[in-house]
Amino acid sequence: MDPFGILYTDLYQLTMGQVYFQMGLHEREALFEAFYRRNPDYGAHQAGYTVFAGLDPLLSWMESARFGEEEIAALRALKSRSGKPLFAEDYLRYLREMGGFSGLTLRALPEGRVAHPQVPLIAVEGPLLQAQLLETALLNRINYETLIATKASRVREAAGEAVVLEFGLRRAPGKGGESATRASLIGGANRSSAVSLSHLLGLPSSGTHAHSLVQAYLALGYSELDAFRAFAEVFPDDTILLLDTVDTLESGLPHAIQVFEELRRKGHRPVGVRIDSGDLAYLAIQVAKELDRAGFPEVLIVLSGDLDELVIWQIKSQILEEAPRYGVDPDRLIRRLVYGVGTKMVVSWGAPALGGVYKLVAVRENGTWAPAIKISDSLEKILNPGHKGVYRVYDERGLATADLLTLAEEALDPDLPLVLRHPTDATKRRVLPPGRYTLEPLLEEVYRGRRLFDPLPLPLLQERRAKDVQRLDPGVRRLVNPHVYHVSLSERLFALKEELLRRLGG
Amino acid sequence: MDPFGILYTDLYQLTMGQVYFQMGLHEREALFEAFYRRNPDYGAHQAGYTVFAGLDPLLSWMESARFGEEEIAALRALKSRSGKPLFAEDYLRYLREMGGFSGLTLRALPEGRVAHPQVPLIAVEGPLLQAQLLETALLNRINYETLIATKASRVREAAGEAVVLEFGLRRAPGKGGESATRASLIGGANRSSAVSLSHLLGLPSSGTHAHSLVQAYLALGYSELDAFRAFAEVFPDDTILLLDTVDTLESGLPHAIQVFEELRRKGHRPVGVRIDSGDLAYLAIQVAKELDRAGFPEVLIVLSGDLDELVIWQIKSQILEEAPRYGVDPDRLIRRLVYGVGTKMVVSWGAPALGGVYKLVAVRENGTWAPAIKISDSLEKILNPGHKGVYRVYDERGLATADLLTLAEEALDPDLPLVLRHPTDATKRRVLPPGRYTLEPLLEEVYRGRRLFDPLPLPLLQERRAKDVQRLDPGVRRLVNPHVYHVSLSERLFALKEELLRRLGG
Repeated sequence: MDPFGILYTDLYQLTMGQVYFQMGLHEREALFEAFYRRNPDYGAHQAGYTVFAGLDPLLSWMESARFGEEEIAALRALKSRSGKPLFAEDYLRYLREMGGFSGLTLRALPEGRVAHPQVPLIAVEGPLLQAQLLETALLNRINYETLIATKASRVREAAGEAVVLEFGLRRAPGKGGESATRASLIGGANRSSAVSLSHLLGLPSSGTHAHSLVQAYLALGYSELDAFRAFAEVFPDDTILLLDTVDTLESGLPHAIQVFEELRRKGHRPVGVRIDSGDLAYLAIQVAKELDRAGFPEVLIVLSGDLDELVIWQIKSQILEEAPRYGVDPDRLIRRLVYGVGTKMVVSWGAPALGGVYKLVAVRENGTWAPAIKISDSLEKILNPGHKGVYRVYDERGLATADLLTLAEEALDPDLPLVLRHPTDATKRRVLPPGRYTLEPLLEEVYRGRRLFDPLPLPLLQERRAKDVQRLDPGVRRLVNPHVYHVSLSERLFALKEELLRRLGG
Repeated sequence: MDPFGILYTDLYQLTMGQVYFQMGLHEREALFEAFYRRNPDYGAHQAGYTVFAGLDPLLSWMESARFGEEEIAALRALKSRSGKPLFAEDYLRYLREMGGFSGLTLRALPEGRVAHPQVPLIAVEGPLLQAQLLETALLNRINYETLIATKASRVREAAGEAVVLEFGLRRAPGKGGESATRASLIGGANRSSAVSLSHLLGLPSSGTHAHSLVQAYLALGYSELDAFRAFAEVFPDDTILLLDTVDTLESGLPHAIQVFEELRRKGHRPVGVRIDSGDLAYLAIQVAKELDRAGFPEVLIVLSGDLDELVIWQIKSQILEEAPRYGVDPDRLIRRLVYGVGTKMVVSWGAPALGGVYKLVAVRENGTWAPAIKISDSLEKILNPGHKGVYRVYDERGLATADLLTLAEEALDPDLPLVLRHPTDATKRRVLPPGRYTLEPLLEEVYRGRRLFDPLPLPLLQERRAKDVQRLDPGVRRLVNPHVYHVSLSERLFALKEELLRRLGG
């Protein structure tokens, strides 16, 4: 059985399914929404937004996931505590005939776009049983990829125009490396070191050599210089040399310069050096100075070793301050840097999970959507009920100023003031005068029994992300202590929520 | 192309491979070791040991990973900056003919056993090219699974004899959920909610219903009681009811008791209740009290919602203190608890990556192993060089007191005192008198061109872990601020390391 097939799910989806089936509710039309409640908080720094990712792999999975012979046999083998089969034969037959998710319609935020808490990322509509069964796989994909794309977007923000390479496969979570690489690239990494994954995403992979090359040469009685020369001989136009196996400034750097000079004499252009340990900012300055002096001002300096957005920011700040003292132009140095980012990006260090949830918000009753709500001790956790419209509101500068949830049937008149209600605090509201705002509907239909479009090329997703991030207020983009972006309800949705809470005694 | 085939690796393994190939070094015998440098530090709490996991999937992968047509075509398509192919045809032909890892021999710590920093988990011996190519996939598997098995072992320690259920698939990292579930079970979880993964591991999956069942009933105009009744009707012998959709004590609990009474009248035994939010310790006490009063002292109380080892420990402490005040026997209550642990276990919250590395430690020169070393700014990062023996040292109580690294050829005489040297501090040593210690070799040959044993059943791995943890000093097992377990060098290995460092000017 394929471990990642339709049974890549939690058992309770299937037990609930049997209850719906036996009670005749399994084909009632339901609406679930996937959203998350809080942006990642890394401790010393916090995200002011997320980058939505994971949609495309989910849609591909939905098209292929099926209850086949093996899946039904696995379910048939599960036993009740009574010793009898847990699942009834008529239910299993129904699943087998149903196949997969052909009854569902999904509207979703386009992948790669900026997202905010409480705002539906995906709305799933269809038979209660199918919609319920989708939960685990949906959350599994979008929670992790959104988390990593968000971290990568922060790394991209810190790195500015520099090239960012994703190096994380060895610390990535097993086969989850597939998602880590994809999400890192959507979020802003330029290339990945992962060979098969890059290939399948239509990108060349990236990488040169590790410490072990130099170590092997040393252990065999050769020298670091011999190792560098061998590399340059085999890859004369792609030579990036790792400086810190023996000693960055005393050994690696002079040996690299010697080999670069040899390459130059043979008519080749050396590409770069890499530094993987030590005080990266200080070493980058010294390395740049010596490379300049030797006539290699174009040679790239790749930095790696436990980098994240704060470390990159710190390196750049330190270079700006320290480089002039050594006669090095800090701006030119920063422009020749490349960042190799691994572990801390692919595990979202500091905030290693996104708490995305999937909640029933409405069921169809006699042709109209009856809103569902779940009361909770914490105000933040109370659902925004019902079938909804989802908009992004832009101000006169073209910057996103709020996301807005409305009733689905609500028509927003652009000639009227727009009232934005706080989702829980009745005393807080903003009013935008007509002509001073524009509205963009956020969700697109992406699945109706089958996916409605082909997988998008990665550059398009990267462009979406970049465009959306540029339309955020700089305060929301800030790496540390960002402004809170407004997520608001329309007057009518706010009123519905209040009424439902009152009715349920909340 | 299979994303998880032999190209589930970093590009630099293949570029280094081409250097070795063109320089005629690719079939030189090399020895690499995988180890990690520090136990996970979760911030407020720290691991005193790890549980080694990920070996079996690695061995299976090694047997099947191959350079096939598609892999070679993908490599052939990679371009140098010069526009020419990055890889030479003779190298690609060699890879194709080589196939996979048929030249390698692996010695490894048995999976499920307790591990410590600096101690080799796997020693890989064979042709330099093959051994180098294995690095990424090896680290990808063992880093993550060891991390999660360690977290699960801590959860198990906190939970005592209680059943622990792994619920994390929705927050697990994409297809890395496969590793998360497996490692959680090796580390001490009893069951998982993941259906396909449990099935493939030979276990039944676990789970009942979510809030959405109650929500769906409410939205359709029925009641929480109707939802509970429906569940009990469909699963009369497996009824666990989730209490906190509306209000745990005011609604969920009385409705559950009513349904349990109905079940009892029909001759069934209700199984449990689950609480997923609120003050879990307080609620567990109140729920236990009412269940006892209603004559259901055997009904389990499942707790879930962002649990980890500290939260479980806190819940138990609070129950011990508070339960008597409500007339509830705390020990009896604790014995009926079950813990559903998800997110924080499957992402190892607080320490989401294990920094395992894979380092060249020796190459064969004229039939003998020449040790390799890498100098580093930090003492902790200096390699323990050469082909080594690896032992666990037990004291007279049968408790593990140290792990010991020696030269491979060193024979340890049990009639002599055992000298344990600190790996870097020359002033620190311990001497164990003969007769007061026993030695256990830790590494077993597990792969020689192919795997040497069939995959082991999960219960055996769980038993290994339990046995090893019991042989740790209680101070090392402590959840917070554990004792540092000694990892030592023999006199001769210490001397070799010193000499190599001196020779390299370190």
